[in-house]
Amino acid sequence: MSIIGGKWKPIILNCIGDKTIRFGKLNQLMPAISNKVLSKELKDLELLGLINRLESDELPQRVEYNLTDSGISLMPVLIEVANWGNSHFAKQIESKL
Amino acid sequence: MSIIGGKWKPIILNCIGDKTIRFGKLNQLMPAISNKVLSKELKDLELLGLINRLESDELPQRVEYNLTDSGISLMPVLIEVANWGNSHFAKQIESKL
Repeated sequence: MSIIGGKWKPIILNCIGDKTIRFGKLNQLMPAISNKVLSKELKDLELLGLINRLESDELPQRVEYNLTDSGISLMPVLIEVANWGNSHFAKQIESKL
Repeated sequence: MSIIGGKWKPIILNCIGDKTIRFGKLNQLMPAISNKVLSKELKDLELLGLINRLESDELPQRVEYNLTDSGISLMPVLIEVANWGNSHFAKQIESKL
């Protein structure tokens, strides 16, 4: 469960989605996450086998990320979790009104 | 995501299942978790609206737990996450053999 338990990992996976995306672009999409934390989370996701880190041969070297097959297969599960969470918290708020 | 992100919460919810269960029985089912951690996790799950804490009027007082409607609705989502996890880690192990 720890794969999807962190605050950032599901958000990062969702931002990568079906794209091949550069670090800087990811950073733009998630301004609330620091460079340092984003780097650490990407490293973790790579070690977990959920994303690929792609280095170009050209100079200046570009580093890009995309989802592995495992990462792709996790997305519908994450969406179910998010849907459950939205419905659960909507009910909690309603019950307190 | 933090609801299901901890190590113990999904296991505790699964142990409660469709039962109304006493603290001591839960403890028996999960010998690896200390009394203190189990108490804390049950308190968290209650605050999250996932379980009910039921106190009997009789003496000696019995405290039992069962799942709320939200807790019940989370179970199929947890099963999907667990199934994904099993298949993901099976693939990771295969790829290293």
